[in-house]
Amino acid sequence: MTITLNDCRALDAQDPLLSLRELFHIPHGTIYLDGNSLGVMPRSAPARVAEVVTLEWGTDLIQSWNKHGWFSKPGQVGDKIARLIGAAPGTVVATDSTSVNLFKVLSAAMHMAEADSPGRKRIVSERSNFPTDLYIAEALCRERGFELVLVEPEGICAALTPDVAVLMLTHVNYRTGAMHDMPAVTAAAQATGALMLWDLAHSAGAVPVDLTAANADYAVGCGYKYLNGGPGAPAFVWVNPKHASRFWQPLAGWWGHATPFEFTPDYRPAPGITRYQCGTQPMISLAALECGVDTLLAAEVHGGMAALRRKSLALTDLFIHLVNQHCEGRGLGLATPMDHAQRGSQVCLTRAEGAYAIVQALIARGVVGDFRAGDGDRHPDILRFGFTPLYIGFEDVWHAVDHLRQVLDSGEWRRAEFNTQHAVT
Amino acid sequence: MTITLNDCRALDAQDPLLSLRELFHIPHGTIYLDGNSLGVMPRSAPARVAEVVTLEWGTDLIQSWNKHGWFSKPGQVGDKIARLIGAAPGTVVATDSTSVNLFKVLSAAMHMAEADSPGRKRIVSERSNFPTDLYIAEALCRERGFELVLVEPEGICAALTPDVAVLMLTHVNYRTGAMHDMPAVTAAAQATGALMLWDLAHSAGAVPVDLTAANADYAVGCGYKYLNGGPGAPAFVWVNPKHASRFWQPLAGWWGHATPFEFTPDYRPAPGITRYQCGTQPMISLAALECGVDTLLAAEVHGGMAALRRKSLALTDLFIHLVNQHCEGRGLGLATPMDHAQRGSQVCLTRAEGAYAIVQALIARGVVGDFRAGDGDRHPDILRFGFTPLYIGFEDVWHAVDHLRQVLDSGEWRRAEFNTQHAVT
Repeated sequence: MTITLNDCRALDAQDPLLSLRELFHIPHGTIYLDGNSLGVMPRSAPARVAEVVTLEWGTDLIQSWNKHGWFSKPGQVGDKIARLIGAAPGTVVATDSTSVNLFKVLSAAMHMAEADSPGRKRIVSERSNFPTDLYIAEALCRERGFELVLVEPEGICAALTPDVAVLMLTHVNYRTGAMHDMPAVTAAAQATGALMLWDLAHSAGAVPVDLTAANADYAVGCGYKYLNGGPGAPAFVWVNPKHASRFWQPLAGWWGHATPFEFTPDYRPAPGITRYQCGTQPMISLAALECGVDTLLAAEVHGGMAALRRKSLALTDLFIHLVNQHCEGRGLGLATPMDHAQRGSQVCLTRAEGAYAIVQALIARGVVGDFRAGDGDRHPDILRFGFTPLYIGFEDVWHAVDHLRQVLDSGEWRRAEFNTQHAVT
Repeated sequence: MTITLNDCRALDAQDPLLSLRELFHIPHGTIYLDGNSLGVMPRSAPARVAEVVTLEWGTDLIQSWNKHGWFSKPGQVGDKIARLIGAAPGTVVATDSTSVNLFKVLSAAMHMAEADSPGRKRIVSERSNFPTDLYIAEALCRERGFELVLVEPEGICAALTPDVAVLMLTHVNYRTGAMHDMPAVTAAAQATGALMLWDLAHSAGAVPVDLTAANADYAVGCGYKYLNGGPGAPAFVWVNPKHASRFWQPLAGWWGHATPFEFTPDYRPAPGITRYQCGTQPMISLAALECGVDTLLAAEVHGGMAALRRKSLALTDLFIHLVNQHCEGRGLGLATPMDHAQRGSQVCLTRAEGAYAIVQALIARGVVGDFRAGDGDRHPDILRFGFTPLYIGFEDVWHAVDHLRQVLDSGEWRRAEFNTQHAVT
């Protein structure tokens, strides 16, 4: 079946989520397929940030700790994020970075494993997990005499031997967009006696997540990707309420103290998720994060994450279909699973030659995706395209693929000189 | 000698730093003596923050990582802070919170002690150190089989027994404003074989600090007090270059990797202070911090930290003098040392009764200080007043003391009903 530009326009016209795009400032002439790396700015963000700067900081100053509730903001924003990931109110805080939060929960999980099943001294993860997760796990294993075992996705079950304390996975893979079956993997890990820790960096706000139904043990996630919280926005952390009050995490700062304003010299951890807070949080960036999370909550009246998921799959299906339709025989492969149950909200294409230059040529045309280098062996170079259903439309997908075809056919990617580009997952 | 209002005005008229006040937005009708808790907003901050939000995030999006140098911002802002604390370029990063940074350096210090002198298993600090520092040390000691020993200031030397790995002190005490002699204490600690770790939360930007001359081992500090970086601004961390590349710190995130964009599964720490970075930083809050640090660098042409120190001492001397002159016999005591060499940039008064209500009555009059509860034993309740020489003038000091006298004489503090107030050191 051939899909036309008019078909895409018709899909936009019928899209019940179309109006949500108005919540965002999409730069003119840009088709932004990189919301999996840095979400687009909500229109509400500049005014809200200005209010925090000029009114809360500039005018009310120190009184804002009470007047504007700064101290409770990480919990308030956490409660909003909780609605997107199947977590109960009071079980999530928005704080610190994903890496720091991973350190907290992995450390607590290792303590729990040592207390409950002392023979378990292994952490299992995927070799292709986002590297910072592996670095944090590697460091903690060094500190605590654990072993980090890295496997390919198909080797996870076999790696769940009786000495495994924690299975630590990212729900949606940052390179390929492949998604794990959270309830099934969680159940499999727990059946072997391991604790299950999920990184939701590429799934919170992108795909439906239900940590409670999956009975996961720990989760962390990112504020600046699909949550649209702005560059380096605070991250979030969730702990299953049945574990949250059992152990300290070692980043035992005063924001995690049971009575922080008593200024006692001894640490007494607050109950529940509050003890996963550490030091004072960046209030201006936290305000921008709240604007981003609010864009997702605005989708609740239109069907929420289920409706966003339907559109996301329709967008990625359309992209894959149009790439097949328009770019056949041009050396592109598909790294993202066709099976909806295994696909996040991104599509990754492979190409043996010129992947980096093609991405640069697309960016020069206003189609912003990104490039992830392969390892020359198991993992090829990747052209990565994220589809945020809040602000990407079906016509956008058409034009993105049309630009891709033109870039390939014109050979402009061969001629162009492009600067080295960093990008953040 | 009696000092008059006109004398204070004359001091302002002669003040070579007077023009720096124009860099700040001081709320109308406010005498803000709480810059030791949250510094006043620089006038440059709203526009700069708006630029980061609407241009860097809103328009340039993911390309800002290159175009606007986001990835190198922690080091750039760190280099500016370095000029205020006697640190070499490339040895400071602005990142994470003070508590998280303290965790990093204390952890590295413990590793170094274990490698170089394995018998040393004690961390010594002051019982009246800011509590979050003690909590972090307590947690690390639990994790690593060390012992945390807390002493009174006069007991520090005696506590430096041959089993002490690290002496961890805050340079200027948050409650009393008492300042340690950094070179002497550092030398004393190192003479016993201990490492010296300084928290500069109440001294960076407030008093001259020369970490290099003192040959300190580690330092952390706060961005939102005397650096005027905004609520919850990122903190900073310095490591003596001779140690920086020797050990990992366990918050081994990808921003501390030698080649973060190769996305390798194994951690390889970057050389030097870069390995003290962990995850992605809050760029909007970091931009505000840079505005704050720039206000201090603007003082360099007027004599820099030495000139700021002269004015700071003149302000705190004046405050103490005027309190004696106007409030004698009203039950106030002085908790801050008279000796300049032992005084930070704040003055703390004690009062057996009503200290909290007096602070609230002063705030109602526009004189913003804060209250710190005593422990009913060694430490009395405290009325705390910070003097930021960048924006506080001598006439301000006159009026502040005059309000204090009126509050005490009128008894309005007895009648007033005040809400419970949190405040952040």
